[in-house]
Amino acid sequence: MKHLIDIKALSAEKITALFAQAQQFNQTPIKETRKLHQGRSAIALFFENSTRTLTSFQLACQRLGIDITALNIEHSSTQKGETLCDTLLTLNAMQTDLFIVRHQQNNIQQEMSSWLNNETSIINAGDGTNQHPTQGLLDLYTIWQYKQDFSTLKVAIIGDIKHSRVANSLMDGLNTMNVGEISLFAPDELIPSKTKHLKASDMNTCVKDADVVVMLRIQKERLPEDLNVDFAQWHEHYGLTNERLKLAKPEAIVMHPGPMNRGIEISDEVADGSQSVIWQQVRNGVLMRQALIHKILS
Amino acid sequence: MKHLIDIKALSAEKITALFAQAQQFNQTPIKETRKLHQGRSAIALFFENSTRTLTSFQLACQRLGIDITALNIEHSSTQKGETLCDTLLTLNAMQTDLFIVRHQQNNIQQEMSSWLNNETSIINAGDGTNQHPTQGLLDLYTIWQYKQDFSTLKVAIIGDIKHSRVANSLMDGLNTMNVGEISLFAPDELIPSKTKHLKASDMNTCVKDADVVVMLRIQKERLPEDLNVDFAQWHEHYGLTNERLKLAKPEAIVMHPGPMNRGIEISDEVADGSQSVIWQQVRNGVLMRQALIHKILS
Amino acid sequence: MKHLIDIKALSAEKITALFAQAQQFNQTPIKETRKLHQGRSAIALFFENSTRTLTSFQLACQRLGIDITALNIEHSSTQKGETLCDTLLTLNAMQTDLFIVRHQQNNIQQEMSSWLNNETSIINAGDGTNQHPTQGLLDLYTIWQYKQDFSTLKVAIIGDIKHSRVANSLMDGLNTMNVGEISLFAPDELIPSKTKHLKASDMNTCVKDADVVVMLRIQKERLPEDLNVDFAQWHEHYGLTNERLKLAKPEAIVMHPGPMNRGIEISDEVADGSQSVIWQQVRNGVLMRQALIHKILS
Repeated sequence: MKHLIDIKALSAEKITALFAQAQQFNQTPIKETRKLHQGRSAIALFFENSTRTLTSFQLACQRLGIDITALNIEHSSTQKGETLCDTLLTLNAMQTDLFIVRHQQNNIQQEMSSWLNNETSIINAGDGTNQHPTQGLLDLYTIWQYKQDFSTLKVAIIGDIKHSRVANSLMDGLNTMNVGEISLFAPDELIPSKTKHLKASDMNTCVKDADVVVMLRIQKERLPEDLNVDFAQWHEHYGLTNERLKLAKPEAIVMHPGPMNRGIEISDEVADGSQSVIWQQVRNGVLMRQALIHKILS
Repeated sequence: MKHLIDIKALSAEKITALFAQAQQFNQTPIKETRKLHQGRSAIALFFENSTRTLTSFQLACQRLGIDITALNIEHSSTQKGETLCDTLLTLNAMQTDLFIVRHQQNNIQQEMSSWLNNETSIINAGDGTNQHPTQGLLDLYTIWQYKQDFSTLKVAIIGDIKHSRVANSLMDGLNTMNVGEISLFAPDELIPSKTKHLKASDMNTCVKDADVVVMLRIQKERLPEDLNVDFAQWHEHYGLTNERLKLAKPEAIVMHPGPMNRGIEISDEVADGSQSVIWQQVRNGVLMRQALIHKILS
Repeated sequence: MKHLIDIKALSAEKITALFAQAQQFNQTPIKETRKLHQGRSAIALFFENSTRTLTSFQLACQRLGIDITALNIEHSSTQKGETLCDTLLTLNAMQTDLFIVRHQQNNIQQEMSSWLNNETSIINAGDGTNQHPTQGLLDLYTIWQYKQDFSTLKVAIIGDIKHSRVANSLMDGLNTMNVGEISLFAPDELIPSKTKHLKASDMNTCVKDADVVVMLRIQKERLPEDLNVDFAQWHEHYGLTNERLKLAKPEAIVMHPGPMNRGIEISDEVADGSQSVIWQQVRNGVLMRQALIHKILS
């Protein structure tokens, strides 16, 4: 494994191997894992704001003994008229081992890997509305921890699926893992026109008998300006409440990629309830990124 | 010791033990102290700007072998509508060992520790106008280095005492150490209405026979907007000059938490004079924070 | 060697020793070099934006095992009215080993070293339009790698020489290395009035038979406001094209300090051509900074 740009590039076997690696890191003292990649370095190039994903990658690198430098892009040479390609080749000439890149433009990491002649590894930390493969992996890992067998699961995904790279990577990953069924629900404008998955007619149908309920964040900043979504009424029509959650299987888990809009896509009682695995997702994010980076650099 | 949120939580014995630990770190090569906490991590969450305090904590952590990540709060998820509690629980789920938090709101760190169920340690790096306990500790440590016995000392504190978390933590700590006498001087509007300490009638009385003179920074940004303080004449009435310093004991030391407004609360001749221990305070800041973090994580 | 503030302070012997040290670091695994300065710390104080230079210093320090803290100057105490001298003395009191300083004011690092009583080392990472000595060293190192003997070389330098600290440090260093000939070309307003080097009458003359062609970045932000330079026609008159490059010696190398304005001072075909050593310069930047910091701290 040289890069991780699109989760579709990973087979079920590779994904399962990452689960095992993450499990192992969970049981290994950081004092030990820090010895694994001493002398390696990574550069985080985030062209979009991030707290959780950037911090998660920083901690994952630190725990593997990798020096990670997060560039302040606002101050970067791209402001001085340098092309993105030249910025990348400059940093690459400093002989780093790994680039972790978030960018607002779809598919840019693929292009970047071609500029590097595939010499240096790239991990996609989110590109536009396209892919967020490490989030997909941590979501799969979390589902696997609770459910083990994907083939019998019904996974409900609710919210702005159309503009969600989180949903894209998760759906792709679930397909690879041969998931039983994916059920989608959203206002018509926010559901992909082409999808092989079931579009539920209403939220209750979507949630009914689900093993996993994934609530997406409403990202006002990603929605088309002319879209007329009534956010005031969002919670009533598309929010997950305890009442609706009762329609799912009794052991169903509730997931959310964060940051949460409490009272909009998810109620406090659900977010803080016993079926929520939201903090476990965050915890798994660091472990899965450790596992991935370890595989890529080994 | 799990947290340090308010200096009043520390007994004289605990404070004295921290002095001893700081002294020991002062004599130990960093190459050795860096081995103490390998694999531990800290997250600095500063909701207010800081150079000296943040850098001091960063160096203290580095010198103990702790990976410290300073979050860029301006870019954080709180801008995406996430609650402070969710931001904290998210970072906590990444299994860090210590949060170092500065915030403009009084008492917020106490609340944060309850959100964390007291699981993860919090050090208060300043909350509003309330407490700045590590500054208090480094100030006590500095006084102790020069004077040893607190019970015979007169400590003069001059400036905006009412809005100063530095003064609050120092006065609380001096009380715990059974200080001889604290004398305060400020314009009436800037002195706490309730205080058990002596309010001097004029600056000369305040400084007279003092063993320690603490000058506070005028923080225009913290003053009530309608307060009518004449900053142009501040130095004349409330500034420490060599002439005034002569009223103190001959071996009196002069302290200032920095950053200094030279020519306002303190004259150049005093700031750079032989009685100034201002750089020693900064030096002690790193050592005391090392001592504190070491105790908390041990 | 205590500081590096001006490249003129370095003898040819010292510069040659730095070449040898950089070569050695190039052949040593980072895992080994990281053991050299464990426990040392550096503070990067950049009062001007930078990606490449700051990152280069950060990686150089990391690869020597030095903890480097890059201060966010926008948030710094200088905004709170603190003098630059007090900011420096504050950081110095935290017992760091090295300051790496970029500042818009010429000669400020010299002044800073006097404030520090020469106790702590300073490396100049660029001061105004005056000096950028580590860039000069990496440029010399790159020329040396390709050409070895400086005394027979013709070096052409083209662009805004007058406002270029890069050109200043390079010309000074080339003088020290006893270069054969330096030929300069620029619009009259952008060439220093006093220079002992040849001002070419046109670009072809400047480039003709050169062994090294150094293209400078047009820095619109550094030019006097009233200067009437036609940037639209810059490429035609002062840009390096393949056609012009043919006038140089067949083995001539092309250098640029970056970031490049492609299509202005340099054409794509030259920047990406076989004679370009631009990425090698960047690579050498980290190695040379490692070599320099190693010498200073040893």
